[in-house]
Parts: sequence; C-alpha cells; structure tokens
Amino acid sequence: MDSALKNALIEIVGEDNVTDQLIDMVSYSYDSSEHSHRPDCAVWPQNTQQVSQVLKFANENNLSVIPRGAGTGLSGMCVPIKGGIVLDLNRMNQIISISIEDRIAIVQPGVVYADLEKALAPYGFLFPPDPGSGSVCTLGGNVATNAGGVKGAKYGTTRDYVLGLEVVLADGGIMRTGARTMKCVSGFDLTKLMVGSEGMLGVVTEITLKINPKPTARSTTVASFPDLENAGRAVTQIMYSGIIPSVLEIMDRYTIHCINQNTDLNLPEVDAMLLIETDGYTKEETDYQMAKVIEVLKANNPDQIKQAADDAEAASLWKGRKSAYAVLARIKTHFVLEDVTVPMGNIAALLKGIGRLAEKYDLQIATFGHAGDGNLHPQILYDGYNPDEVHRTEKAVAELFQLTIELNGTLTGEHGIGLAKAPFMHLEHDQNAMAMMRAVKKAFDPKNILNPGKMALEVN
Amino acid sequence: MDSALKNALIEIVGEDNVTDQLIDMVSYSYDSSEHSHRPDCAVWPQNTQQVSQVLKFANENNLSVIPRGAGTGLSGMCVPIKGGIVLDLNRMNQIISISIEDRIAIVQPGVVYADLEKALAPYGFLFPPDPGSGSVCTLGGNVATNAGGVKGAKYGTTRDYVLGLEVVLADGGIMRTGARTMKCVSGFDLTKLMVGSEGMLGVVTEITLKINPKPTARSTTVASFPDLENAGRAVTQIMYSGIIPSVLEIMDRYTIHCINQNTDLNLPEVDAMLLIETDGYTKEETDYQMAKVIEVLKANNPDQIKQAADDAEAASLWKGRKSAYAVLARIKTHFVLEDVTVPMGNIAALLKGIGRLAEKYDLQIATFGHAGDGNLHPQILYDGYNPDEVHRTEKAVAELFQLTIELNGTLTGEHGIGLAKAPFMHLEHDQNAMAMMRAVKKAFDPKNILNPGKMALEVN
Repeated sequence: MDSALKNALIEIVGEDNVTDQLIDMVSYSYDSSEHSHRPDCAVWPQNTQQVSQVLKFANENNLSVIPRGAGTGLSGMCVPIKGGIVLDLNRMNQIISISIEDRIAIVQPGVVYADLEKALAPYGFLFPPDPGSGSVCTLGGNVATNAGGVKGAKYGTTRDYVLGLEVVLADGGIMRTGARTMKCVSGFDLTKLMVGSEGMLGVVTEITLKINPKPTARSTTVASFPDLENAGRAVTQIMYSGIIPSVLEIMDRYTIHCINQNTDLNLPEVDAMLLIETDGYTKEETDYQMAKVIEVLKANNPDQIKQAADDAEAASLWKGRKSAYAVLARIKTHFVLEDVTVPMGNIAALLKGIGRLAEKYDLQIATFGHAGDGNLHPQILYDGYNPDEVHRTEKAVAELFQLTIELNGTLTGEHGIGLAKAPFMHLEHDQNAMAMMRAVKKAFDPKNILNPGKMALEVN
Repeated sequence: MDSALKNALIEIVGEDNVTDQLIDMVSYSYDSSEHSHRPDCAVWPQNTQQVSQVLKFANENNLSVIPRGAGTGLSGMCVPIKGGIVLDLNRMNQIISISIEDRIAIVQPGVVYADLEKALAPYGFLFPPDPGSGSVCTLGGNVATNAGGVKGAKYGTTRDYVLGLEVVLADGGIMRTGARTMKCVSGFDLTKLMVGSEGMLGVVTEITLKINPKPTARSTTVASFPDLENAGRAVTQIMYSGIIPSVLEIMDRYTIHCINQNTDLNLPEVDAMLLIETDGYTKEETDYQMAKVIEVLKANNPDQIKQAADDAEAASLWKGRKSAYAVLARIKTHFVLEDVTVPMGNIAALLKGIGRLAEKYDLQIATFGHAGDGNLHPQILYDGYNPDEVHRTEKAVAELFQLTIELNGTLTGEHGIGLAKAPFMHLEHDQNAMAMMRAVKKAFDPKNILNPGKMALEVN
C-alpha cells in the first residue's frame, strides 16, 4: 500500500484504525459467496465525520471504497473486486435511541441484528425482517441488501421498516433522507432508493427504523406431501383462504433426505414438506387461522399433518428447517445458495424445473425456502475441485435464472445482485431500466468509486 | 394552441382524444388545492404506446407534460403551472388481472380506487391504503402521490404495496421496474423511487399491486378527553401496550364543535376525541386488543368511553370523523387542509402549537387526523376575499411547518409537496438531499419536461 495514501487515512481515522496487513487483506477479500479479491487496505471509521473524510479523500484520489458490515452476503456484494479501501463499519455499533411511543429505533450501521433484537425485547417489540444470519449480520448490511427472512410474506423486508437515513455521499457530503415519522411524502424517496443499493450510492451512517410489537401467540403445523404438485396447490389455496401465515416454508425431498442423513430427526422422506406458522395476540386468533390452513392442507392429499401442541413441539418442528442450510453446506466441498423468487402460483413449476436441472446436469440440488412469498433457495452442492462439476453447476445456475424469469420471477428475492448475479441482470431488466439504474449511479457517484464492478452497471 | 402541435398530437391519439377547448383548459387548470394555471392542451391516451409517442414528441419539442388522474390532490401537484400538455390517464382504466394465488392485482393508472376495491371484494381481498378520496381518485394518482389513509399506522401507504411498474420515460422510452413477486432485490429500487415522485420522473402506465386479505372482525371505540394532554398521553401509551390499532383517529375541540353545528350528531364538545379500531380474523382477537386499549384510555382521565356493540353502532361512531372534512370545508369561503406529521410522542405538542397559532393569527383552525401514525390535518378556514385574512393564513401555515420540523416531523405525511409546500422544502431537507433530488430529476428528465415547477427542484 502506498505510504502517502496510508498516512492520509491514518490522519483521518487514527493509526489503530487503518490496516494493510496481509491477514486483514485476506479476511476482507471474501464474503459468504464464492467470490474473492483483496482490497489495498481497510479502515474502521468511528463516526460519520470520519466516513465523510475518507470518502472525500477517496473521491479526490479516484480510489474505490467498499462499505462492509459482517460479510454474510451471499452474492459477493462487499468483495473488493477492484481493490481499494474497505470501509468496515463494525465499530459504529451504537443503538442511538429506542422510542416506543414513536415506534422507532435509531441505530448506527454496525449494530448487529441480534443486539437490536435483545434491546427491543424488554419492550415487547422487534424489528421484523429476521434474516437467517441475524445473530451476526449488521443492520447497515441489512439496509444495503434489503435483507429479508422467513416472515417476509406477512411482515415484508428491511425496506418496509427504514424510515430515514443519514448517508455519506461519494464526495463526502452528508445527507439526511426520510423522516422520524411513520409516513413521509416529502420529495423523492431517497431512503427507499438507498435500501438495497448494495453500497453503490452512498454509505449509510445512521438508520431510523420502524419497529413492531411482538405477536404474543402463534400456532405451528408441519405437513408432508408425497407429491410436489399437491404441496404447490396447497400453497396456492392457502392464499385463497384469506390467511397470510407469518411463516410458510417449504423443503423438498432432497433437503429432507440430507437432514435425515445428518441429524436424528427422522423426517418422513416425501416430495415436499410445508412448515406453517400463524401469529397474533390470542391463541383463538392463531388457531382460527391455522384451522383454515389445515382445511386446505387436508384437501390436497397430505401424507401427514402435525400440529404443535406447545412451544417445545413447535421448536422441534422448526429443527429440520433451521438445520437445512448448515447440513447441506457440509455435504460437498462447495455450494451455491440461490434465492430465485416467483409468483406463488408458480412455486410448483419452479420446483419441478429445478428437479429437471438436477437431472440434466447430474447435480445434487436441495431446495427449501419461503413458499409464502415465492422465494426459494435451491442449494447446489458441488465439488469445487472438479472442473467439470463446476462447469455443470454454472450451466445449471444460468438455466435456473432463465427458468425463473420465464415464470415471471426475479433473480433474487433477498440475496442481491453483487457479483454473482450481475451477468444475468439483462435477463430481468430491459435496456431502459438498466440505463436508468446507470443514470442513478452516475448521479450519486460520478467517479464510480463506491463499490465498483457490481450489478452490471459498468457495461453499456 | 399551435395548430402544428395540435395536429401532431391528433396523429398520435386521434382527433377525439385531444382538446384545447376553453372549458377543458379551465377544468384542467386546478386540482383540489387553491392553485391553478391553464395548460395549452390536453390529451387522453388510450395505451402505453400513445403515452410513449406523446412524450417523445414533447421531449423533442421541449413541451411540458403534466400527467393527471382524478385531480383530487391537495398540493397543486397536477396543476400545469407552466402550461403545456395535460396527459389525462383516465381512459387507461382497465383492471388487467387479479391473481389471488399470487396475491397481486395488475391495473392501468386510470382505474378508480373504489373500482379495484369492488373487483377484489368477492375474493375477500383489498388494496389497503384507503385514501379519503377513494371513491373517485385513480390508482395512478395514488402511486404518483404515495397515497395514504386512516389505516396507515397498521397497513402502511401505497408505496408498501407497489411491486412493479411500467413507466414511460421522458424521452418516450418504456421501462419495466420491480417484479410480480412479493420480494425483489434485483438492482436499484426504481419502483419505490417512482412512487410519490409526483409525475416528475416518468408516466406510470401499468401498476402491479400487492393485495391483502380483508380482516373479518373488528372492534370500535370512541373516547373523549376534556384535556388535550391526556389524549396525547393515551396515544403514546397505546403504543407501549403493544397494540397497533388499525385506526387511531383524533379530532380536536373545534372540529367537534363544527360537526355539531352542522349535523345532529351531538358529540360531547371536549378537547379531544379518539376513534379507535382494532382488527383481525376473530372477535376474540379484536376485543382482546381493544380491552388493552381501553385500559390505557381509562388511565388517562377520559370524559367518556363508548364501545360499539355492533357494526351499526360502529358506523355511527365513525359518522363524526367522516363528516369532518366536508363540514369544515363549507364554513368559510376558503380553506387549506394541511397534513403535517410528527413522531407520535409529539402529537399533543403539535396540537397545542396549532392552538397557539390560531390564537396568534386570529384564525379558525380545526384539526383532525391519524394519531396512530402522527399525521394531523389542521384545516384552516378563511375568507379568501379578505386580503388580511389570506395573509394571516399564509403566515400561520409557514409557522406551522416550522413548528412541525422542530418537533422532528415532516411537511407532509400523505398530500405531497407539489406547489403548496415547495417553498418549505428547505426547512426539511438539507442542501445535499436537495442536490441529490435535483440530480435524480436530471437523470430521469434532462430537459425538465415532466410536471415542471414543482417540489422546489428548479432553484439552485
């Protein structure tokens, strides 16, 4: 690393908060995807002013800046593919305020999701998105990626809860967006534009979140279906029943099989399993909803329906689903976890298509995900040291995206574009939409210093 | 109107769909605010291609284009302040599809809110925002203004339900944004940016909406408070109770007084009245929530608490609130209906401040609104033919905005900026935020042909 550059950064954040040590450069070279590239250095800013000065300096010197939270992203979003300065926001980790009467929490970007959860629990409140990586991921990362989770169908994703932001712009300017109010239609909605922009439009240094009271009752049921078609039809019919379950998860046969091989859960190895939860304030309410759901399940030839009698039984029903990702991740040397999303009516078709791809490319693909909002996670397990298998995996992924788009779906329901899906942006977005995204990027970051090389925005 | 221009438009949309008749120009000169200015002509496009051709032509010839729905906006948003072509989208009024299994409705912009409501009712579904003008306003207008209504606290506003759009850009290019899926994090969120952009970034020609099942049970209660402070504290404490009422409306003494003078409702003339509704699937659920709310109300020295025993009684409790706007509108020759919004904890302070302004400027100000999301509607009644009263009204409005910002609020919770609030944008938004809004406008509409002169974006 250039010593003049290093000294300039040290002047801004202090000696202890700049590194170009090899071990750090390696740590910052990857996230939770298969992509990696080393940065030139990393800094840990302590406050907004330091972020502002780092960006001003970087912009003047045409240096890339890659904002980073916990690095749990699955699409290579914070991989410094063009080198540059990693801006690690983990040390800006204060919960600034919680106001129950105003129904908001104001936090710095480095606050871990679970820490906010803990702070809100005594009030009986929560920030609902509940991403799978909640125990380690940061709220700044949640905002940058518009993180979602198992409760998206009923409670939406991060974007639905971000009311306002403090943002450092590419040139170091500091901007406030949105408001501390539940509603705001004052000017263009720069807040929602920032959410999910993957660190490419600015660096979020403060977040105002809407929070929700925690439901006090729930009902949980698991149903297994020997036939995929029937499970898909059940999902569709649940929508017609007028019930929006707080959770409506699906696991396919191969996922169940792998869980059984690696745990002692002994799940029935059927085509598909649905895990359903309804929530509310009273047990009458959640049972009423669940009765309607069970009626639908019964009408679609289930193998088994198991309703949890209490929280302990519910937890045991959840075990299989919760272990899926980790169990599957250990089976082969490598895996890709996709998050293609389709209208709910097309879930069965997507699952069938994934089965065809597994056969065609002789791959092990386990699929689970959020049937309630159409977001499936096909996890392709492969041997990364076998070039042929790598090649087949790539072909299968490309075809999976093609199929998803044909089914009126989107490349990504919650993992984002980053590097992994950049080559496929053109499948989903027309030329005019791509041009407008580029125009927005240019308006916010004329020199293209913020997390460059992502989202296919540099190709014209 | 220039005949070459007129002929060009006729060539695009046909003779029956272009007008420059005086009566039409007068009709298109105003909305539901006090602003007005005549356009040069108006066209009724029948489809997206025609919208595209009109915009292409206008852009090439530097003509302003003002998209328009039902004209129910309260901020002069669709007033053609610089003349130009009004693009009336009312004839693009088809509900393209409703898919309950996918939980979406796809509509053209000219569909009236109530018509979609009617179409969804047989399925037991609805599009929740429920704006006050729902019987006449169009969904395109709802999108352009991010319309909200009485259920915002629990169900959010239009933006929370718009999944995807077809947009005609300033140069006539057609772009699709978002997806037909519940979740999508593919690229920058151009969809949410378009929502609430007041026709300044593009013309929406197709809307994909998320829809909700209609709650099947509700409980309704009215409480009156002799003291404003207590009503404000009750609102705050309801938040702490963990209940988010589906409705939490407030009316002040003067509103109640005016309603009594103009109806036979005989409401108790107290400092403040709260109207509360809880909803869910079962009566047990809604009564459980209401019991918690009533506990809070009782702890704050109410004058009276009245719980509706059935739907008929609920309807009678609603009567007062529903008549407020119309009753107040008739009292003087003119009125301004504001929609300042503050964090809920500051509602009492805002109401008190409004009282002070009424006294200071010797004005009649009646305030009602959505206490559950902090959105109040002070309605200033004045004689528009009395220059002194007009002047005092203007002073009071300016001070109201100043007060709102001091209380961490926003100029507008649901009515938008348009012309009415443009002079106050700088109170709420810092220079960097204003610069980014201008940059976004420039990226989308380099020649500034789309609804120019609004939102204070032309001042540098």
